[in-house]
Amino acid sequence: MSSQGQNTGRRPELRHDPVANRWVIFSPARAKRPTDFKSKSPQNSNPGDNSSCPFCIGNEHECAPEIFRVPSDPNWKLRVIENLYPALSRNIEGPCEEKQDMGVPARAIGGFGFHDVVIENPVHSVHLCDMEARDIGQVLLAYKKRIQQIASVESIKYVQAGIFLFILQNCISFSMLWKDRFGVCTLETMVHSFSLQSSSSCSTIKVFKNHGASAGASMSHSHSQLLALPIIPSAVSARFEGMNEYFKKTGKCSLCEVQAKELLIDESTHFISIVPFAATYPFEMWIIPRAHSSHFHEFDCDKMVELGGLLKLMLRKMSLQLNNPPFNFMIQTSPLQVKESELSYAHWFLQIVPQLSGAGGFEMGSGCYINPVFPEDAAKVLREVNLP
Amino acid sequence: MSSQGQNTGRRPELRHDPVANRWVIFSPARAKRPTDFKSKSPQNSNPGDNSSCPFCIGNEHECAPEIFRVPSDPNWKLRVIENLYPALSRNIEGPCEEKQDMGVPARAIGGFGFHDVVIENPVHSVHLCDMEARDIGQVLLAYKKRIQQIASVESIKYVQAGIFLFILQNCISFSMLWKDRFGVCTLETMVHSFSLQSSSSCSTIKVFKNHGASAGASMSHSHSQLLALPIIPSAVSARFEGMNEYFKKTGKCSLCEVQAKELLIDESTHFISIVPFAATYPFEMWIIPRAHSSHFHEFDCDKMVELGGLLKLMLRKMSLQLNNPPFNFMIQTSPLQVKESELSYAHWFLQIVPQLSGAGGFEMGSGCYINPVFPEDAAKVLREVNLP
Ligand SMILES: Nc1ncnc2c1ncn2[C@@H]1O[C@H](COP(=O)(O)OP(=O)(O)O[C@H]2O[C@H](CO)[C@@H](O)[C@H](O)[C@H]2O)[C@@H](O)[C@H]1O
Ligand SMILES: Nc1ncnc2c1ncn2[C@@H]1O[C@H](COP(=O)(O)OP(=O)(O)O[C@H]2O[C@H](CO)[C@@H](O)[C@H](O)[C@H]2O)[C@@H](O)[C@H]1O
Repeated sequence: MSSQGQNTGRRPELRHDPVANRWVIFSPARAKRPTDFKSKSPQNSNPGDNSSCPFCIGNEHECAPEIFRVPSDPNWKLRVIENLYPALSRNIEGPCEEKQDMGVPARAIGGFGFHDVVIENPVHSVHLCDMEARDIGQVLLAYKKRIQQIASVESIKYVQAGIFLFILQNCISFSMLWKDRFGVCTLETMVHSFSLQSSSSCSTIKVFKNHGASAGASMSHSHSQLLALPIIPSAVSARFEGMNEYFKKTGKCSLCEVQAKELLIDESTHFISIVPFAATYPFEMWIIPRAHSSHFHEFDCDKMVELGGLLKLMLRKMSLQLNNPPFNFMIQTSPLQVKESELSYAHWFLQIVPQLSGAGGFEMGSGCYINPVFPEDAAKVLREVNLP
Repeated sequence: MSSQGQNTGRRPELRHDPVANRWVIFSPARAKRPTDFKSKSPQNSNPGDNSSCPFCIGNEHECAPEIFRVPSDPNWKLRVIENLYPALSRNIEGPCEEKQDMGVPARAIGGFGFHDVVIENPVHSVHLCDMEARDIGQVLLAYKKRIQQIASVESIKYVQAGIFLFILQNCISFSMLWKDRFGVCTLETMVHSFSLQSSSSCSTIKVFKNHGASAGASMSHSHSQLLALPIIPSAVSARFEGMNEYFKKTGKCSLCEVQAKELLIDESTHFISIVPFAATYPFEMWIIPRAHSSHFHEFDCDKMVELGGLLKLMLRKMSLQLNNPPFNFMIQTSPLQVKESELSYAHWFLQIVPQLSGAGGFEMGSGCYINPVFPEDAAKVLREVNLP
């Protein structure tokens, strides 16, 4: 089972484009994962049928290898496992190669990294927001522990942890297209088949759309992912530059400074939750520790339950006011090999983004987002909801 | 008709977040546009019924004001008009405000700018790739002319032109949610209604999903958009930094240097088309002028038909090999107020991105993309297709 995602023949690679000025992960193994055909929409998620879900308790043998579980007995409450279709591989080295042979002077490195899954609870139908604050705290502690383990690997520069929604857009599913055309959907055969195809006469094929509405959803079992990268991704670099510039100008950390007021949703002893002043997405929420702290994985263990409680509250408010939307949830932390003491400008936070509107071409091309909802209005809506 | 999108009571605003380090456009008018309910999927687009399409010839009175048409008689071949629901407003000034009152030291400017629509041809069912190279050249010339007009407005820093796909994701439609809940979908009423709502007992509402599959598609009439911005968007800054760094290191322009080889799809006298070495998206394509040129709108008029021809070829190859997918198409050019002579490192290009896979949470949070297809494989597939 565990080798299924690895033996694709081709190894993952990271490439840096000097023009777009960012790194891209090329990952043949990802094209094989079954989730392309599945839905996460609220309607058909958690159908209660766990017989085919590898993340359910009792089905551990259907998963890629385990990294650790909590508690460490058969009656686990959460498990951290390897991703069966990892974007990066833990088994290769990552030397710098020059790709001059392709006629472009460009950088490429081997796709070394870790790609893990955190199964947040043993029961198929339990969502993160249904869990006790204490158990959500355990999930956050699991992230912390796993990042700490990874931090000892020198070539890893950043770990992105969170719930990453896979959005099945209203368009052709990539793998389905291959599968339907060639009966296979591995990348080795794809290019070859296409070469054959392009000289043959068959030109129309059936298109599958809107899998979300009809397909199953075994991956709806509540889980998060951790991706440990050998590069610092572009949004993280941009964030660091932004926070650093602010610090240079004002002598203060941009997130220590947030007083919230009109932007406040809620607060607890050590955290506040806000809609950020220039929220990229409608009803985007941030949970920020009050005290300065640059690395999530170095934050106090004994505050994780409080953080879990505030996260639960935000998820419930969002669910009630915005009709239980799919959402992304991310830990925005600092690069690994930089010391806390050097980062007086960098402050970690949790970001929650409900999936309410589609981002389109303009946003993709420019990096500039159009948000129809002013943050102070969104904050008011979220602040004023009465939870039952 | 023309004021419909403007009189929303609240004016658009741009805000810069020091943490995310990017500008976001807050645009109440956008929430009102009808396109939220519509689909662009290949299946139900261009149904041939043009009676309700404002972009069709004969329905000019249903559109926001015209800027120019080509030729300038009733039998036009293309029109440039104002967007009825503009993200930015041409009627306000943009002074810098300090938003200290919200408890955040942050920058905000008035949402001044232009948001135009280019109706690419008079007939509802004709797609860009169905048009003659000469007529596609006319569309490119219209972009050029309109950018030249806008370039004289000093406060405009960048113009993003292209075909911007609106993706109806497999999730709740934002406006539908409001409309269904409150019978209205304007933003003025929204916050107020929500305040009422949060103290009332009604908590479940019907959710509309997958509008794409069933809804009409009048906006499927082939059109592009131009957004003229008072800021330089973050992806453009990143691109400039990247190209500048490359230049400083090598003494050469990164795009003059592209020799293509394995990455080549096609070429003509003055242009080449490639899959970029570190393509962000599967089957992403770039058309690059061979000779150094920083600003699209200063490029030779007499090469636009040749460019139109290569663009047509790329769209037909994409359509045939990838089963006519929805796509984004963008002109990636240089900021307006910088002179061509100062930009030996900046080179404009056309970017075409077929919509094949969904970008998800990991990409959104990190800015690092996972692409399952190596560019040299994608280029081979596109190079080798035989067009009928
Ligand atoms: N038996 C098994 N054992 C172990 N692991 C198994 C498994 N069966 C499936 N998996 C893995 O579990 C994960 C389930 O993830 P999701 O369905 O949440 O999203 P996916 O990874 O497809 O995309 C989301 O995560 C990816 C990164 O993984 C982002 O690129 C994208 O933005 C985001 O939507 C998949 O990564 C899959 O490979
Ligand atoms: N009668 C009329 N006269 C003039 N204009 C009219 C009109 N009726 C409708 N329009 C305008 O025409 C445009 C049609 O555009 P699309 O359907 O291509 O995408 P939309 O603008 O919604 O989103 C896409 O463009 C926006 C920017 O507009 C991006 O944010 C997003 O990424 C992208 O998907 C809309 O902007 C609408 O406001």
